[in-house]
Amino acid sequence: MLEFTVFKGSASGAIVQGSTTRDLKDTEVLVRITHSGVCYSDQNYRTQDMVLGHEGAGTVLQVGAAVTRFSPGQRCAFGYQHSSCNTCAQCLSGNDAFCPLKECYAYANRDQGSFGTAAIWDQNWLFHVPEDLASEHAAPLMCAGSTVWSALQLYPARPTDRIGVIGLGGLGHVTVLFAKAMGCAVVVFSGSEGKREDAVKMGADEFYVVTPQTTSLGIGKPLDRLLATGNKQPEWSLFLPLMAPRASIYPLTIAFDNLTVPFMQFVLAGLRLQGATISSRQGLLEMLDFAARNKITPWITEFPMTLEGVSNAMDTLKSGGVRYRAVLRA
Amino acid sequence: MLEFTVFKGSASGAIVQGSTTRDLKDTEVLVRITHSGVCYSDQNYRTQDMVLGHEGAGTVLQVGAAVTRFSPGQRCAFGYQHSSCNTCAQCLSGNDAFCPLKECYAYANRDQGSFGTAAIWDQNWLFHVPEDLASEHAAPLMCAGSTVWSALQLYPARPTDRIGVIGLGGLGHVTVLFAKAMGCAVVVFSGSEGKREDAVKMGADEFYVVTPQTTSLGIGKPLDRLLATGNKQPEWSLFLPLMAPRASIYPLTIAFDNLTVPFMQFVLAGLRLQGATISSRQGLLEMLDFAARNKITPWITEFPMTLEGVSNAMDTLKSGGVRYRAVLRA
Repeated sequence: MLEFTVFKGSASGAIVQGSTTRDLKDTEVLVRITHSGVCYSDQNYRTQDMVLGHEGAGTVLQVGAAVTRFSPGQRCAFGYQHSSCNTCAQCLSGNDAFCPLKECYAYANRDQGSFGTAAIWDQNWLFHVPEDLASEHAAPLMCAGSTVWSALQLYPARPTDRIGVIGLGGLGHVTVLFAKAMGCAVVVFSGSEGKREDAVKMGADEFYVVTPQTTSLGIGKPLDRLLATGNKQPEWSLFLPLMAPRASIYPLTIAFDNLTVPFMQFVLAGLRLQGATISSRQGLLEMLDFAARNKITPWITEFPMTLEGVSNAMDTLKSGGVRYRAVLRA
Repeated sequence: MLEFTVFKGSASGAIVQGSTTRDLKDTEVLVRITHSGVCYSDQNYRTQDMVLGHEGAGTVLQVGAAVTRFSPGQRCAFGYQHSSCNTCAQCLSGNDAFCPLKECYAYANRDQGSFGTAAIWDQNWLFHVPEDLASEHAAPLMCAGSTVWSALQLYPARPTDRIGVIGLGGLGHVTVLFAKAMGCAVVVFSGSEGKREDAVKMGADEFYVVTPQTTSLGIGKPLDRLLATGNKQPEWSLFLPLMAPRASIYPLTIAFDNLTVPFMQFVLAGLRLQGATISSRQGLLEMLDFAARNKITPWITEFPMTLEGVSNAMDTLKSGGVRYRAVLRA
């Protein structure tokens, strides 16, 4: 039996330290976690008795008897999804992120995650980290990167696209980095004037402040694609007039209200609303390779992987103080 | 100067007969209208002082000095759109239906339409009717057909798709005919049990009655694509659970309310909401060829192209009595 330290949510919202004991099955890998990104969706599970974290990077400590893809000492990373059935229409068509039988963060293996000293992961859902990609940068790509990657590449952006990004946070800033590296024009919409300078440094071509008082936006040339990455849905009626005919909109927010857009404006412009989630495995592999080749470097704020460090990281994220992804470091 | 009879809306909603006088410009064609489809969107303009009708078929009577594409006696057809700029990004990429400078029914050339004895049309927005396609069948394809064709082919349906059709009217029944001819499985949702037999004759594999009292639908295998063709938006929350992961939904209704869907259900299934309108010219050409080769025969109810005939056709359509597209015949 293997035992490792984990950091969990609790009914009061306080982060608590615990320990998990598990066998290492034949196809599993014991990963020493060196880094973990902190995602806003971790906040949603903070009051549950489960191990938090789904953006893990580390090194292989030990492998099960049937493991062929990893050996001790190699760097590796894992994300939101833990498994898929490998036999349904979605899996067989390369869309394993939509497997109806998939296991995911918060719904399976709640006794482990990327907030901890180690995790035990199936070899087929563990990813090699390319040599040119630091583990502290690989970690936040495993969910934030994976999600915006699917919105940029599952329905492929063209390098000639003018891409709008709503929200410059964990997902938004990676969108800017990716889109810029793809040669796209990038337009950022943020609630905070204070982020303008950073956005430009990341590669944004234009930056607009949008507040609850904003009633219209004038941005010149229309957008071909819009990724909404904020913590809540934007005021869609502000953004629909900015879209080029046949443009696509990707709502990447987690929201429990309805999606509501002006009907005729949406239909007559031939707009597309595309639901998108994390990437499937092949997408993740392509993203990691792309990030390494193009020296994609998420902007991170590090916290120690300790009870205090996890609590601080979560509180800082909640208060909007993270620039632009919190990463726990062991 | 050329003069012809036209049928128009009027403030009271009564159809009135008038006459239009026009020159024939160098690039224009004088068409004798032999058939016109009657579309529900004609109802929306019934109280306006404009010539109705945008699903015309006829024969060439006379051509302007510079016309190269048509000669007298040839059969031809025209639809909703009258022109495009030919130089914008949409036109140059084959998407002239989204040209920002396009001229369309009800917004341009309100002194003529397909409800009349003749019309004068630019040669580049007039279409040859294939030999194997009767004019009474070509006419309703010019808008009803064109619209569902764009939802089926601009974002191409696969022959393995299971396609849902909401509403068995002008657009819906052509969707069934097209989708069946493409080898797809077709599932019809209708408010009327009385249409079941016809739907099956058209090629529907399954038929479900949906009333305002319906609270859930069980249809077995999920849908890959859903075309909503009714006169108002469906209750989307009934239909979202029927969709396969990554499926597409095409709202083809004309509606002046908002489009509202449950957000997380939409996003997590990776669904797509795709605005779609009439086909661009290349799409229309492909549709006419496809229809002729596959012997697509819209189910029509004929009315005479007279003041009384137009009025009767419009009233019958409004009362839901048309099976399944009214066609005026000269």
